[in-house]
Amino acid sequence: MSKILIWNEYLHEVENKSVANYYPNGIHGCIKEFLSQDSTLNIETATLREENNGITEDKIKDCDVLIWWGHKAHDEVLEATVNRVQKRVLEGMGLLILHSGHHSKIFKRLMGTNCNLTWREYGEKERLWICNPGHPICEGLDAYFELEMEEMYGEPFQVPSPDETLFTSWFEGGETFRSGLLYKRGNGKIFYFRPGHEAYPTYLDKNVQKVILNAVKYLKPSKKIWEDIHSPTPKSNRPKPIEPISKKGFSVGHPTEE
Amino acid sequence: MSKILIWNEYLHEVENKSVANYYPNGIHGCIKEFLSQDSTLNIETATLREENNGITEDKIKDCDVLIWWGHKAHDEVLEATVNRVQKRVLEGMGLLILHSGHHSKIFKRLMGTNCNLTWREYGEKERLWICNPGHPICEGLDAYFELEMEEMYGEPFQVPSPDETLFTSWFEGGETFRSGLLYKRGNGKIFYFRPGHEAYPTYLDKNVQKVILNAVKYLKPSKKIWEDIHSPTPKSNRPKPIEPISKKGFSVGHPTEE
Amino acid sequence: MSKILIWNEYLHEVENKSVANYYPNGIHGCIKEFLSQDSTLNIETATLREENNGITEDKIKDCDVLIWWGHKAHDEVLEATVNRVQKRVLEGMGLLILHSGHHSKIFKRLMGTNCNLTWREYGEKERLWICNPGHPICEGLDAYFELEMEEMYGEPFQVPSPDETLFTSWFEGGETFRSGLLYKRGNGKIFYFRPGHEAYPTYLDKNVQKVILNAVKYLKPSKKIWEDIHSPTPKSNRPKPIEPISKKGFSVGHPTEE
Amino acid sequence: MSKILIWNEYLHEVENKSVANYYPNGIHGCIKEFLSQDSTLNIETATLREENNGITEDKIKDCDVLIWWGHKAHDEVLEATVNRVQKRVLEGMGLLILHSGHHSKIFKRLMGTNCNLTWREYGEKERLWICNPGHPICEGLDAYFELEMEEMYGEPFQVPSPDETLFTSWFEGGETFRSGLLYKRGNGKIFYFRPGHEAYPTYLDKNVQKVILNAVKYLKPSKKIWEDIHSPTPKSNRPKPIEPISKKGFSVGHPTEE
Repeated sequence: MSKILIWNEYLHEVENKSVANYYPNGIHGCIKEFLSQDSTLNIETATLREENNGITEDKIKDCDVLIWWGHKAHDEVLEATVNRVQKRVLEGMGLLILHSGHHSKIFKRLMGTNCNLTWREYGEKERLWICNPGHPICEGLDAYFELEMEEMYGEPFQVPSPDETLFTSWFEGGETFRSGLLYKRGNGKIFYFRPGHEAYPTYLDKNVQKVILNAVKYLKPSKKIWEDIHSPTPKSNRPKPIEPISKKGFSVGHPTEE
Repeated sequence: MSKILIWNEYLHEVENKSVANYYPNGIHGCIKEFLSQDSTLNIETATLREENNGITEDKIKDCDVLIWWGHKAHDEVLEATVNRVQKRVLEGMGLLILHSGHHSKIFKRLMGTNCNLTWREYGEKERLWICNPGHPICEGLDAYFELEMEEMYGEPFQVPSPDETLFTSWFEGGETFRSGLLYKRGNGKIFYFRPGHEAYPTYLDKNVQKVILNAVKYLKPSKKIWEDIHSPTPKSNRPKPIEPISKKGFSVGHPTEE
Repeated sequence: MSKILIWNEYLHEVENKSVANYYPNGIHGCIKEFLSQDSTLNIETATLREENNGITEDKIKDCDVLIWWGHKAHDEVLEATVNRVQKRVLEGMGLLILHSGHHSKIFKRLMGTNCNLTWREYGEKERLWICNPGHPICEGLDAYFELEMEEMYGEPFQVPSPDETLFTSWFEGGETFRSGLLYKRGNGKIFYFRPGHEAYPTYLDKNVQKVILNAVKYLKPSKKIWEDIHSPTPKSNRPKPIEPISKKGFSVGHPTEE
Repeated sequence: MSKILIWNEYLHEVENKSVANYYPNGIHGCIKEFLSQDSTLNIETATLREENNGITEDKIKDCDVLIWWGHKAHDEVLEATVNRVQKRVLEGMGLLILHSGHHSKIFKRLMGTNCNLTWREYGEKERLWICNPGHPICEGLDAYFELEMEEMYGEPFQVPSPDETLFTSWFEGGETFRSGLLYKRGNGKIFYFRPGHEAYPTYLDKNVQKVILNAVKYLKPSKKIWEDIHSPTPKSNRPKPIEPISKKGFSVGHPTEE
């Protein structure tokens, strides 16, 4: 069993009837529904305006993969939430960042760059080409798949060079975009997947659902977490010398000892 | 001409006579002195407790390479300072992080990880092996060089995989460490160089000076900055379609437009 | 079940009694023995002087992970064998290169560099530090482990920058080395693991055995192979245009069509 | 001054009048002509059917950047030529691989993969998007540029993950492609640049010329070569121990000593 947590900003669906038509139970509800067909997944959800943004220490501590959708209220995400998620990613939790999550605090925190891109909300066709048909995240896909209406995202996408580029997109209006990027930070695998604007029924698409299910399996940590990862100065971080040596010079001391 | 800015926490040298013996003008003063032998460098310095941590918009806007030394007061560095430095690195400014700067806010910001390591202040010998004698940063060095007294830093060093590892260290007490790591974030080159504990005369060492001078030249941006890099939604970020298409679906709008 | 193939040059053990004392059934026999404790592994062996270097199309076609030990007869490995192994690695087969295999034809083929290093056969202590205790290949290890007698390998190790460095070594005589390196080529994961000189009982060491067992599990492909990977011009490689366009200019034709 | 060597297969221009119309002096002649406007470049050319493929030890030994165009006669390139070029790249010579050179022996040698892709010769429009406007290779370009007629290259492009992706292409027929990829092997920088089918006047395009000129400047080695890089066992590769140790165990010897 894997434990999956789907986080959603959950504002557009509440405030806009057209969005709610596509996602009556929220984008998180829609994703939960199609992932639930896989009986090895234990799925929970959380949303922005719950206490602690819905992400308590308890809820995340044994989470295998966190899915993140946010758009217009990135600033409402608490620093404590970002810290909590980053901590778990470094330990090994997988993180799937969807669409406008490219500007979320947690993605920018993990990337170290501004994660900017160009965009146009015009309901245009997106065609996603598979750059590595042999990758587990691309399993079951054809050479490409199409979404009839999507928001355009264009280069330059200002992120560090990824470990691997799995998709590149072609947009009806003429742009291209690197739309599936893999990273590792600490022991956590991170996948950025471009599609999913709230104004279109993207998460009802069978290929998008396939990618998300594949990603959730791929991002799962392969090992129990490494617990010592966070402490800047556990005892084991000031080890005794192994070779016989004598102290030279004077000591100033480390700030963490003071 | 390159413009270099040397930033130093500048606390140990003021508070501790033994440190001041090595660095009567501060670590920044020492670095400025040996770099000044290169007449193509225009060098300024800044310290923590100056206004704005000594790093104003003006001072950094045409800076080619920033050198950073901090240790026990990382928390005193203002968020605005970190933002200002990160912005310039993404534009293309080089950044040389020295020794205990591994735990600085700016390095953690750019790496996205906790940057932890193990350590021991015992004045032991460090031997740095050159992993790529053909790299410009290693120019003029032998197969290895030694520092008679240094603080030990040991693995695991919790940073993203670097673009290149230039040095690995051997410590008298028995540890190893990846002690010279290259990264690129945005268009800025970043080099982490391990040696330089305040309790030892490391920055008086000819080989350390050679590495720092080489690094300053290597990290210099090769091109004028790309000015559009920061704005999340400049006009050019919502381009008109190039191909003739008609709008489909409805619009929700982007948060940055509202 | 995983299918593992252990390939060994198998010359030292035949020609040198002292080597045979450590490895009466060959290095491949020793590795097979300790891996056999894991009942999910189906293990075969092959050696240099068998027909086709012991690696037939049949034997390798469903192999999950190939382990490679070679030293003094790299040149005897047939080009056809190297081609066959490379083909399978690109499809997704894992490859574990041991010790002097750094100079094997297959490792140099996959790396694109000369894979040189420095060395000294002096029976000195090697201490391997774990750079990422959270990685599956490092599971069950302490912060470091030691081998009482090993051949020294030193920097510069002339390989492309790895996806991750898992071990760095400290040698009694004073050198360091990046002794555990991960790569991906095509869909195959490649791990280079340094220890294992034939003159010492390295493969009898419990920690070395642990690393090799962990690696074999980690390197296993996570998905069935991608069969189209090799053909330079399958039909699907000359796709019809998806968008309605008309041909412009003249044609020269592709060499593979002629 | 930089020394540039332009290598061209030079068969299409001789055998096909339509190609010769675009390139009366060969593709190499065309490239030489527009590069010659930069007076800091010392430019020579070489072609496939000259003795030693036109690349003698003498001609390449002080070459800063080699430009490579080949298509239908990759197999005629001698192994000795490939060895000679690889040797120089590892030392630090820059290498610019154009278009169908993706299947050249030297590119496959350096990449370690099959470098396959899909293609269609249909004279369709290519639009190249700039992924990093701040990179020196992209200096002076707009957000994108177009070529009216080009051969289509499509994903999957089977190469190792690059250090940076500088261009992605959109083709009229509907495909995308990562069309500008940066690598480093040894100390040589390698840039793969997609456009340049012989049936179209691509190298007469001002933007393509700009990229090639930028690339030639960027790929130039920043330092004199590291001469020790090739020898597997120079004296310095069997160093005396630095720390006082005594030999343990027995010796088998290294193959290179025998």
